[in-house]
Amino acid sequence: MKTYRFLLAGLGNIGRNLLEILHTKQKILRDEYSVNLIPTVLADSSGVLSESHQNEIDLMAVINAKKAKRGVATLPHGNANISVLEALSHNPIDVVLDATPVNLETGGVGLELTRLALEKGVHVVTANKGPLALCYQELAAMSDFDDASKPGLRFSGAVGGAMPTINVGRSDLAAAHINRVEAVLNGTTQVILEMMASGSSYDEAIQEAIHLGIAETDPTLDVEGWDAANKLVIVTNAVLRQKATLNDVSVTGINTLRADEVRAVRMLGERMSLLATAEWMGDHYKLSVAPVPLADSHPFARLAGDEMAIRYETDIYGTQTLITTEHGPIPSAAAMLRDFLDIHRNSHH
Amino acid sequence: MKTYRFLLAGLGNIGRNLLEILHTKQKILRDEYSVNLIPTVLADSSGVLSESHQNEIDLMAVINAKKAKRGVATLPHGNANISVLEALSHNPIDVVLDATPVNLETGGVGLELTRLALEKGVHVVTANKGPLALCYQELAAMSDFDDASKPGLRFSGAVGGAMPTINVGRSDLAAAHINRVEAVLNGTTQVILEMMASGSSYDEAIQEAIHLGIAETDPTLDVEGWDAANKLVIVTNAVLRQKATLNDVSVTGINTLRADEVRAVRMLGERMSLLATAEWMGDHYKLSVAPVPLADSHPFARLAGDEMAIRYETDIYGTQTLITTEHGPIPSAAAMLRDFLDIHRNSHH
Repeated sequence: MKTYRFLLAGLGNIGRNLLEILHTKQKILRDEYSVNLIPTVLADSSGVLSESHQNEIDLMAVINAKKAKRGVATLPHGNANISVLEALSHNPIDVVLDATPVNLETGGVGLELTRLALEKGVHVVTANKGPLALCYQELAAMSDFDDASKPGLRFSGAVGGAMPTINVGRSDLAAAHINRVEAVLNGTTQVILEMMASGSSYDEAIQEAIHLGIAETDPTLDVEGWDAANKLVIVTNAVLRQKATLNDVSVTGINTLRADEVRAVRMLGERMSLLATAEWMGDHYKLSVAPVPLADSHPFARLAGDEMAIRYETDIYGTQTLITTEHGPIPSAAAMLRDFLDIHRNSHH
Repeated sequence: MKTYRFLLAGLGNIGRNLLEILHTKQKILRDEYSVNLIPTVLADSSGVLSESHQNEIDLMAVINAKKAKRGVATLPHGNANISVLEALSHNPIDVVLDATPVNLETGGVGLELTRLALEKGVHVVTANKGPLALCYQELAAMSDFDDASKPGLRFSGAVGGAMPTINVGRSDLAAAHINRVEAVLNGTTQVILEMMASGSSYDEAIQEAIHLGIAETDPTLDVEGWDAANKLVIVTNAVLRQKATLNDVSVTGINTLRADEVRAVRMLGERMSLLATAEWMGDHYKLSVAPVPLADSHPFARLAGDEMAIRYETDIYGTQTLITTEHGPIPSAAAMLRDFLDIHRNSHH
């Protein structure tokens, strides 16, 4: 049995569901994976809750508080006056689980937390695209991606929810040359495009998606293609091993489309999708995100609104296609558990 | 740099292509994976060729001999009088690569070789379904599936070619409960059913598939469903963690179908496929292989003749679908390289 004391930052949809999964799967984690996970610091925008001799963290109490929209600082022993970075420095943490909100300008607290953890030799599992899209090379160089003796860094939940995008690309296609990557990496635009094809205007579709909780109140990152572009940047660095940032991606969003264009494509038996593409040009990959009409024979033409997909065309492994069908935040939260278990399996410390 | 001396048994389509891949990828394996693979024993039905001070094995010479249909015993320093088991005992081998022919009655030399290697603490990568379908539990218990300090055992090429069936099921869906598995795991029957849907009789389709090199001269294992059933048995043991052998699978082949039935299904917009299914019954998985008409909306309804697929329905990871598109034996051979590199990555020895 190996014990890991964890810090979880961010208790929104993904973080809270991760706590529920860890609670539900506690027995299987002990019995089948010989892993004992101890919640040591939980942090949200209200402050932090730390374990101490006087206070063993009760996961169910935290889950119930979050369901009732209360921050951890309001709980007994909660503290609104120390930051998650201080909490990481002052507690014995083995793994940081980062489910903080995406900040694409600065990387936000997720970037600071990931840097500090890796510096301290603490493993990091993150579902936060921001730090990776901005600083992939720096963070990878501090982690086991660079040297197996360094702390683990995993981020599969940041790139397509529960779809094993990164693991398949890096491990299952080991030593391959990848000629082309095609992917549908943004679920929100899939839903909006489907609504437009079925008769809604762009604005109606956006409002409906917000109403259904599928789009965020400000859906800019999704509809302008930046969310998909971020994920493509991470795949390019992690799988294609080409240094890339957002500046290297030609990005066109679905906000450029009129509903009648989307419907005209559908009338032809095709399907408009926001497609992320990396194409090998002989000495580098050309990266783009753009709405593309897919012929009915294209393997992505029939993806439902709750599906994402990626397709790797390789030299020796043929073409490998992954499709994920997922509703809500649970599969992205589960990807963080998968990543933690991968670190555990690979851990030589 | 870590050096692995390997024994490769079986130099048919998969074994020979693996040698070509190892030759082509030598530099990338050294530079990016810090791995140096030295051919130490190569064995085929003619005998063995072993490395010695007087004889460093020249991979290209062996590849060319095999292309010219010559056995390794005919090469300088080749030996027709010792068995591959003796060669394993008498040479310093770090990893056995088993590409020997499938024998579903006894397991054949592949089973003996795998047992001997694991007993000696030698890693095994196998593309041979026979030993696994017959003796999965015994072999897993001798390997790192049981205890990380034991030698590695990997077999992804035995279950769907280059499709990452096993890795995704075991690692990417870690700690999940899988409610249902559906899979198309036999490419030959896909091709034959497609020919029948297009107007061929069953016998014509078989003859054409043999002529094209897609079916073996005796296609019994494919058309009667045993090949798919074997793969399902391996998935059941390795991914679903239920002990199973062929006796636990209800098997119906496509040899029970008339061409007019296949065409009638197609006329309805559906598609006949040989579907392997594992369904959770509350306390065990019910296993079956049978021809099933798939509605046009089914994710496998549009698989081409050169495609296989598997779909895992889970509790926390949503539904994950994998599709492999592959021609010829290279992707199955590449799966053996993937497996070797996975052993290397996980190796704590």
